[in-house]
Amino acid sequence: MVKLTKEVISKKEINKTGMSNQSVVMGLSGGADSSCLMGWLLAQGYSVHGCVFCYGSKHNKYENEAAKKVVQFYELEFSDRVSISFHDLSLAIKGFQSSLLISGDSIPEGSYDDESMKQTVVPGRNLIFSSVMAGLAESIEASYIALGVHSGDHLIYPDCRIEFIKALDSTIYLSSDRKVQIITPFENFDKAEILKIGYDLTPEVPYQLTRTCYKDQPLSCGKCGSCNERLEAFDKIDMKDPINYE
Amino acid sequence: MVKLTKEVISKKEINKTGMSNQSVVMGLSGGADSSCLMGWLLAQGYSVHGCVFCYGSKHNKYENEAAKKVVQFYELEFSDRVSISFHDLSLAIKGFQSSLLISGDSIPEGSYDDESMKQTVVPGRNLIFSSVMAGLAESIEASYIALGVHSGDHLIYPDCRIEFIKALDSTIYLSSDRKVQIITPFENFDKAEILKIGYDLTPEVPYQLTRTCYKDQPLSCGKCGSCNERLEAFDKIDMKDPINYE
Repeated sequence: MVKLTKEVISKKEINKTGMSNQSVVMGLSGGADSSCLMGWLLAQGYSVHGCVFCYGSKHNKYENEAAKKVVQFYELEFSDRVSISFHDLSLAIKGFQSSLLISGDSIPEGSYDDESMKQTVVPGRNLIFSSVMAGLAESIEASYIALGVHSGDHLIYPDCRIEFIKALDSTIYLSSDRKVQIITPFENFDKAEILKIGYDLTPEVPYQLTRTCYKDQPLSCGKCGSCNERLEAFDKIDMKDPINYE
Repeated sequence: MVKLTKEVISKKEINKTGMSNQSVVMGLSGGADSSCLMGWLLAQGYSVHGCVFCYGSKHNKYENEAAKKVVQFYELEFSDRVSISFHDLSLAIKGFQSSLLISGDSIPEGSYDDESMKQTVVPGRNLIFSSVMAGLAESIEASYIALGVHSGDHLIYPDCRIEFIKALDSTIYLSSDRKVQIITPFENFDKAEILKIGYDLTPEVPYQLTRTCYKDQPLSCGKCGSCNERLEAFDKIDMKDPINYE
């Protein structure tokens, strides 16, 4: 197993825009990646607005609670530069097919690479979230939308691939006269490296408050693709995941 | 005033895909353009699913009723090829600024070209609607998303411009493995020409059931930019608008 040190991480160029002191709108799921993204953006000096999406997924209530706790944590340190809003899309995406949704089949267990994980794709999820963030960015005069996509995002999710993000960036840029741009600071990092970045920030990302599991239960299952990927990432950096599992 | 005849219209090439007998998802506002688009797509042989969006605008309840009536009209002729769904975005776009929204200032009167009409822009509206349609298209296995953008769409709406639509097409194409594409049959027509196309279809587009006004009142005002533009278009083709005005 590769042990990632600060030195290894510093070799990779974080996609810095040099445009801190501006406002960024980001999607905050309450998971480890987006919580780290919020911490990183705040550390760079941005004002950060986290959009929390409710879209009728089985784990929505748990991840939304986690997102709220993460923002409360950052408010202690950066009270004037962090904010949150909740966007309920559940009535907007009626008729969508995915096992991730309350209307869908049960969540498969195993690895993300299994064919069965394709059932968990919510069609156009990143596109819809980003579109709402673009509209909000214009309304609150933010300059950027930050997405937590990373190099480990899986082939089953077309709307996490870099070619999609590039096209989305052009589309959002052209969608308003404000010329909002997308930034993806973690696109060259994998999940383990992102975790490590979070431990190196001041304050450390409160991973104990985050929630990753796809299942509809208070305690994370430790068995779904999402839990497995998280556990592997903590393992890879020789850290113990601070949340409790079933 | 130019009188448009069938001959004039036939000189313009409608962007035909040659792909009828397939399913198309389209946004149905209940206005004249989208109602004509539905009629035109049905006449080409497509199965057409109309997405009606509720987004907290002042005229939503009136335009949604109109959309429902238009679909009921087409169901009489094309029962197996037309369907409708309602998508409530009002909780998703909380915090958006626009005079078109219930939360905004009053709707300005006058021409679309007036600076004041910029207040009626809902940030990212077409982007958000199209994103939801893309997700739905994947879920119901439709091949296309049809947009009613036309050559008369105004500069105040960045998300009706052709360069935006092209970027959106790439983004949606890449957002899913289904490779959904955008079609814009009316992009080279203005509003008067679209009205004329609707009168030439069999059955004629039921313009008497459509609703265009931006105001929160049962009878169309005849004074807002949207009403003015509609009245000018009917005038241009020497037809009387069949709806009642205040």
